[in-house]
Amino acid sequence: MNSSNNLGLTRRRVLASAGAAAGMGLLAGGCESGTSPTASASAAHPFYGSHQSGIATPPQSHLLLAAVDLASETASDLRDVLGDWSTAAARLMRGERAVAGPPNFQAPPPDPGEADGLGPAALTITFGLGASLFIRRGKDRLGLAFAAPRALRPLPPFRGEALSSDQSDGDLVIQASADDPQVAFHAMHALTRIAADRASIRWAAHGSRSHPPNARGGMGHRNLFGFREGTRNVDPKDAAAMTQHVWAGGGREGDWMRGGTYLVFRRVQMLFDVWDSTTLEGQERVFGRRKSSGAPLGGRSELDPLDLNAQRGGQPLVPTDAHVRLAAPETNGGRRLLRRSYSFAEGVEKDTGQLDAGLLFMAFQRDPHEQFVPIQRRLAESDALSKHTLHVGSALFACPPGAQPGGFVGETLFA
Amino acid sequence: MNSSNNLGLTRRRVLASAGAAAGMGLLAGGCESGTSPTASASAAHPFYGSHQSGIATPPQSHLLLAAVDLASETASDLRDVLGDWSTAAARLMRGERAVAGPPNFQAPPPDPGEADGLGPAALTITFGLGASLFIRRGKDRLGLAFAAPRALRPLPPFRGEALSSDQSDGDLVIQASADDPQVAFHAMHALTRIAADRASIRWAAHGSRSHPPNARGGMGHRNLFGFREGTRNVDPKDAAAMTQHVWAGGGREGDWMRGGTYLVFRRVQMLFDVWDSTTLEGQERVFGRRKSSGAPLGGRSELDPLDLNAQRGGQPLVPTDAHVRLAAPETNGGRRLLRRSYSFAEGVEKDTGQLDAGLLFMAFQRDPHEQFVPIQRRLAESDALSKHTLHVGSALFACPPGAQPGGFVGETLFA
Repeated sequence: MNSSNNLGLTRRRVLASAGAAAGMGLLAGGCESGTSPTASASAAHPFYGSHQSGIATPPQSHLLLAAVDLASETASDLRDVLGDWSTAAARLMRGERAVAGPPNFQAPPPDPGEADGLGPAALTITFGLGASLFIRRGKDRLGLAFAAPRALRPLPPFRGEALSSDQSDGDLVIQASADDPQVAFHAMHALTRIAADRASIRWAAHGSRSHPPNARGGMGHRNLFGFREGTRNVDPKDAAAMTQHVWAGGGREGDWMRGGTYLVFRRVQMLFDVWDSTTLEGQERVFGRRKSSGAPLGGRSELDPLDLNAQRGGQPLVPTDAHVRLAAPETNGGRRLLRRSYSFAEGVEKDTGQLDAGLLFMAFQRDPHEQFVPIQRRLAESDALSKHTLHVGSALFACPPGAQPGGFVGETLFA
Repeated sequence: MNSSNNLGLTRRRVLASAGAAAGMGLLAGGCESGTSPTASASAAHPFYGSHQSGIATPPQSHLLLAAVDLASETASDLRDVLGDWSTAAARLMRGERAVAGPPNFQAPPPDPGEADGLGPAALTITFGLGASLFIRRGKDRLGLAFAAPRALRPLPPFRGEALSSDQSDGDLVIQASADDPQVAFHAMHALTRIAADRASIRWAAHGSRSHPPNARGGMGHRNLFGFREGTRNVDPKDAAAMTQHVWAGGGREGDWMRGGTYLVFRRVQMLFDVWDSTTLEGQERVFGRRKSSGAPLGGRSELDPLDLNAQRGGQPLVPTDAHVRLAAPETNGGRRLLRRSYSFAEGVEKDTGQLDAGLLFMAFQRDPHEQFVPIQRRLAESDALSKHTLHVGSALFACPPGAQPGGFVGETLFA
């Protein structure tokens, strides 16, 4: 678990809050005026800790995810970028400017400034490394191939996907999540600017996630098909489950990843035309849940157990091709993922004239080839939901363990 | 000003709040659970009134703007679409499903359902009509050309713009603004679905707008260049200013527009590469304001008067090409606009590898050819800011007056 940070908190107080979940200290940031800041604007998560932030952190309202390609071909440049990013990320998560320094009218402002006065807004920043940093076109690109974790080898193709290279892969990933979209934008802007001479943005995705006023924690939000998401997700507060399913344990090539995790990203376009014409019964059979309550078919409320053996008239209550059945740990050898997905909606899909919208599927796990890959292979082949969605982007990143003050995320790779 | 609505408010109470600005009643919506809803999730604006909502309404946090092209070529279909939309919009703004009706498992759900439980979230929905509904390729398309307002004739070209047809124009516009992005998405999804057999989406844009914790009303938010926006905007609570600058007065062709207004939309891409390399002094000279405080050059705080005559060493303190000077009513014959812009950030700009981000400029006015056009012509030719921005989308819409219960927005066109 993350330890509390030990930075200058003279204008901050520890917020005793149920939101301080997952063992992380949630700090109330300072506010320039005498008025009370809103809870979300003032919340600050610590950057430093044994794990990176933005993984076990309860999902914020907004996401900006960007894959970045390294322009340099030296390991020391990668090391410098990661070091600079960590220093800036720790500042940004405290609601400070990315780069310290007095104003100098004769120089470009060290921080672009669009988040001035917005507070930390529960910002978390998570860094990850892609396979192309280690081996590209068969070559040991930076002299780091010896450290490439087996778990980071490329994902196999899946049936029915239509991946676009300009929405897939990347040397590095930055995940900025916050309760204010401008705070997430500013973090991404500031971090990419710091590395502007050494890296360029390959793709970026913007997501959001709504919390019903009566929902607690991350539960109960709906995806854009109107169904509740994440009901049976790994509980980030369950340390044993996190160790079993999420935190990487190390191993021959990947010992530097011990305490880290692997992020699978899939950009999943939702095909609304057929979906919106599907009967309510049909929609519920696709997911295997009631639309309004989120209860599994045969159950009464969202948290009722999923009974995959229940039958009516000789037929399974939860259809054999229902999403909830095919994704369930019970039918996947106990495999689970920590999902932390966001919805996206970005303009119009040219071919259909419909809103281009769907799910930025993101899942953290200790080994994607033992977890995401077998689950997704089964979903792609049999899941009723796959007829209503199209995977158009895909990426896999190794997210190193957290850093301590004075260190940086990724330093274990260079140890 | 909008009248309060007279709908069933048994679960609602009037919120005595400074947020009930612009003379509109702000209602607290019901919440299914016993817990307290957040202020933003519970706020409801009335759809019915003498003006449409979403114009004088204090800007919400999120925007979804979509231009829609009518598939039909009959005025009665247009009338039906507008009627159906108003009925649904009034329901959506109360936090209800778009279409009433008991659940029917054997039919597609009348409402797509993704905003169930999220409350009204201060949703406003604004409708507008484009010039192409009246005259298209020189023809009286729907038999309504006689009613085409002179103020709706197409905008002229401006220097330096690079407009893309798939981000410009459109037969109709829907503006959905809310404090929850999923509520805005749902409104757009539900409304376009209602008209799916009669209309298709031409383009859509997503925006957001951050309010510092200590800001009051719509003041003080920063654009993505880090400068404060809207400091000298028309005050929607100033009825005389709204009558003078914003609400259309009618006239020979456009009498049906009396009490309506005209929306100019410009998608303005910000060019961050040069901007981020510009000195702080240079940035402040481009805007004519201090970056941190928002004070006009020569002033001390954001609300200080703009002194365009102030000099130092024989040079004007506010440069001759500063944005604040060239956009000022004082240098534009008193012309003013009610701006209601949002920031956007949607992926990566292919040519530069930078974040594709900027401003969804939106301004309401009584006659764009007397207000926006002369101001923008001057800005396009001389404004220092124009070197750092690129206008890539443009549209103009006539937003009819509001409707009363039983009526619909746009009915005056058919009277």
